[in-house]
Amino acid sequence: MKTLATLLTQEQVQRTHKASLEVLSEVGMIVRNDKALAIFVKNGCEVDSETLLVKFPASIVEHFRKMMPPTFTFRGRDPQFDRTIPDDSPVIITASSTPDIIDPVTGEKRRSTSDDIARIAHLINELPGYDVFSISTLADDAPPDQFTISRLYPALKNCLKPIRSTATDIEDVKKVLRLGSLIAGSDEAYRERPFITHHFCPVVSPLTFDHDSTEMLIYFVEQGLPVYPSIVPNGGLTSPMTLAGTLVQGNAEFLAAAVLMQMIRPNTPLIYSTLPTMADLRTGAYASGGIECGMLQMACAQMSHYYDVPSGGYIGLTNSKINDAQSGYETGLSTMGGLLAGADMFNMGGLLDALMAFDFAKAVIDDEIAQMLKRVKRGFEFSDKKLALDVIAKVGPGGAFLSNPHTVKFMRTGALLPKIADRNAHGDWVKKGSHNTHDRALLQAREILGRENIALFSPEIEKKIRTEFDNLVAGDLKLPEGW
Amino acid sequence: MKTLATLLTQEQVQRTHKASLEVLSEVGMIVRNDKALAIFVKNGCEVDSETLLVKFPASIVEHFRKMMPPTFTFRGRDPQFDRTIPDDSPVIITASSTPDIIDPVTGEKRRSTSDDIARIAHLINELPGYDVFSISTLADDAPPDQFTISRLYPALKNCLKPIRSTATDIEDVKKVLRLGSLIAGSDEAYRERPFITHHFCPVVSPLTFDHDSTEMLIYFVEQGLPVYPSIVPNGGLTSPMTLAGTLVQGNAEFLAAAVLMQMIRPNTPLIYSTLPTMADLRTGAYASGGIECGMLQMACAQMSHYYDVPSGGYIGLTNSKINDAQSGYETGLSTMGGLLAGADMFNMGGLLDALMAFDFAKAVIDDEIAQMLKRVKRGFEFSDKKLALDVIAKVGPGGAFLSNPHTVKFMRTGALLPKIADRNAHGDWVKKGSHNTHDRALLQAREILGRENIALFSPEIEKKIRTEFDNLVAGDLKLPEGW
Repeated sequence: MKTLATLLTQEQVQRTHKASLEVLSEVGMIVRNDKALAIFVKNGCEVDSETLLVKFPASIVEHFRKMMPPTFTFRGRDPQFDRTIPDDSPVIITASSTPDIIDPVTGEKRRSTSDDIARIAHLINELPGYDVFSISTLADDAPPDQFTISRLYPALKNCLKPIRSTATDIEDVKKVLRLGSLIAGSDEAYRERPFITHHFCPVVSPLTFDHDSTEMLIYFVEQGLPVYPSIVPNGGLTSPMTLAGTLVQGNAEFLAAAVLMQMIRPNTPLIYSTLPTMADLRTGAYASGGIECGMLQMACAQMSHYYDVPSGGYIGLTNSKINDAQSGYETGLSTMGGLLAGADMFNMGGLLDALMAFDFAKAVIDDEIAQMLKRVKRGFEFSDKKLALDVIAKVGPGGAFLSNPHTVKFMRTGALLPKIADRNAHGDWVKKGSHNTHDRALLQAREILGRENIALFSPEIEKKIRTEFDNLVAGDLKLPEGW
Repeated sequence: MKTLATLLTQEQVQRTHKASLEVLSEVGMIVRNDKALAIFVKNGCEVDSETLLVKFPASIVEHFRKMMPPTFTFRGRDPQFDRTIPDDSPVIITASSTPDIIDPVTGEKRRSTSDDIARIAHLINELPGYDVFSISTLADDAPPDQFTISRLYPALKNCLKPIRSTATDIEDVKKVLRLGSLIAGSDEAYRERPFITHHFCPVVSPLTFDHDSTEMLIYFVEQGLPVYPSIVPNGGLTSPMTLAGTLVQGNAEFLAAAVLMQMIRPNTPLIYSTLPTMADLRTGAYASGGIECGMLQMACAQMSHYYDVPSGGYIGLTNSKINDAQSGYETGLSTMGGLLAGADMFNMGGLLDALMAFDFAKAVIDDEIAQMLKRVKRGFEFSDKKLALDVIAKVGPGGAFLSNPHTVKFMRTGALLPKIADRNAHGDWVKKGSHNTHDRALLQAREILGRENIALFSPEIEKKIRTEFDNLVAGDLKLPEGW
């Protein structure tokens, strides 16, 4: 793209920034974490130790936010899958951490397990549109003290692309890092190529740092390991019922988290990552499929450009329970909006029902949408060969292009050739069973799940992991019963 | 929107323009219409009367294309529905002229009739997202000499919004204008507020003016009645298999049609209207749902801005046969792309299967998408009230916005409240019957079709029309049998 779509004037971007500074200096944030409080005190914020309210002088926010680096890198077990934003934008990621899955055989919703994560990891590894696997579901079968590694182990064992994960507390985090070191071969090897990117929501809107997520964010920044926060205001419930108000508050919250990170370790890479929504106050529903979510993401992308920091987040979610028209247009409208506004990262893949359930077919459909977004980003090419004036002259008025060598040359690259979208004549579509997109996508998922897993660990590593983590889930790829 | 997304640099826009001039001056166009040939000769083009090849000197194209006015107005029977682009952009229109309809009762595809057109007209009149009704289907029950008025009469009788129509030949056109005059009360009254906008595809790609459509385009321009042409190159078959090549050829074809119109009557309003596609050469399928169609529309919008003329066309079509995820994302991705690139007019509503079948549910779903596009276009509002800094301060860190008067004030306007999109909790959705988007949209269509038609003609006009056009179709709104 040559210029980006913007919903705000440059003056409005500046006004949003100034208003955010005002919120941070005059309203402030409650900080429910001692380490964060100490860091803010040390760096000149006003802290009320009774109410835990921290006020951020504008000059301090300005000082630290200018330390944010302009890039962020996701590393994979295999370096060919490393992705740096914004250079490699758009980076497409699964949406994550849902408790439930739509069972691919019965079509019924049920709790997700570590076996499901192994399957999803393999699927994401094989689907070309995805760049990063953010672990889609929880593992209901996790042993009590292995909540996070029961998700991470099957993910890493079945996917060479960068893995994004979260954790529940610092004890948990230490197991995660130990697993990483065992796979990499040593602590040093893991720290040289940390193939797990950590993600937390340290801010509970409105304007509150929590304890645990903030603690873990601080830990990873201290360790110099890849981590970024997401900001998730919900207009009408946890932020104002107006787009501008939710943008300002969310931007203030982002700045607070960003400043905390830069205070700990200057120039720590991060992402302006958000999931801003407007509640549907007819029922109080969480409307992450609403067009306002896409609009707020577009405005956040604009703010991120003002700060010169990569941006993105949960763009393209749907409220639909199934892969119907709604799931298609909600994902389509918001992702194209985000792309054309210059968002770098899209946590868009595989979830239905406003983040409540993973669906294999949705992941495959979103892969095809991802490929379209990437095609748009590549844009037009204006070589003489592509302009084809000689071909237009040679074919001439009333002529046919099909048999021209230029057409033959570009027939497989001149347009994206989708696998899931149906382009049959109506009669052929009926003959082939009148399948809808969901059916076709599920078939493709099944075919991919039948392929060999190429991401397995060596027997030595496997043995070391199992020795250290007794009782660990199997994490092996296998087709679901009945498929 | 403040700035538009662009896929081309300004230099590439100019290069496209120059390359188009080169195509017109060096390759030229075949012109299969004597009147057009005469007009081109008279205005200084080189015409080979044997081959019918016309070459357009660049200076002549430049002279006439600068006469294109920057606006185009659609007029409705009721002036409150008049729409001028680009001021009222995006103007949302049904996609049109398909032979078939998905029967809303049986779900089966069948030929469409004038009764169907009456129903569709009423539906479009009632759905708030639509601005113009381009008659969606043909009328299979039309008497032999009433092909076009059998479509127009039920359309006008059931819809007060602007009607867009086409015609088959000049005899047909005369009946159309007579019908318009009878409804308006007189020729003069109709010409003062012509509530039918005419549309033709005079260019058959590559680079050929046909006889009939060109003849009718000329006629309406001569008459000073609203008309515009659409350009429909199909990469790989009727234009090059590259985006840049198809853009250049299509742009040349648009300029040729535009120049013809301006030669007849300087400053005739028109639209840079296109439906550019890239064929899927695995099968030769017409891929109007492909992302390249959206990308080409974005580039055409950019060309239209260079020429300072309103733009748009068939943006947001789908190849899907049903309202599934594909129909959702194909319509969603391309329309958002077109919107953010500044296209003014979207012929997006109601058709499935690459323009082959109308579907009531699709029309209702597209209405909801239209409302979202219009919401994006309105953008953010940055009043103090909307920024809500006082509300953020008052609610404070950790507070709740729900009960704040600001939230109550904006709860119905702060976010679009969709009718078709489902936002229920999963259990409620199941309890309500696990309906998909198609089912819900069809229910809404049925409810609307049960409403009173407020667009009827007076008994006097009705009598005059029936006296003049013996054997005319009924054109009355009634629910389909079995509904």
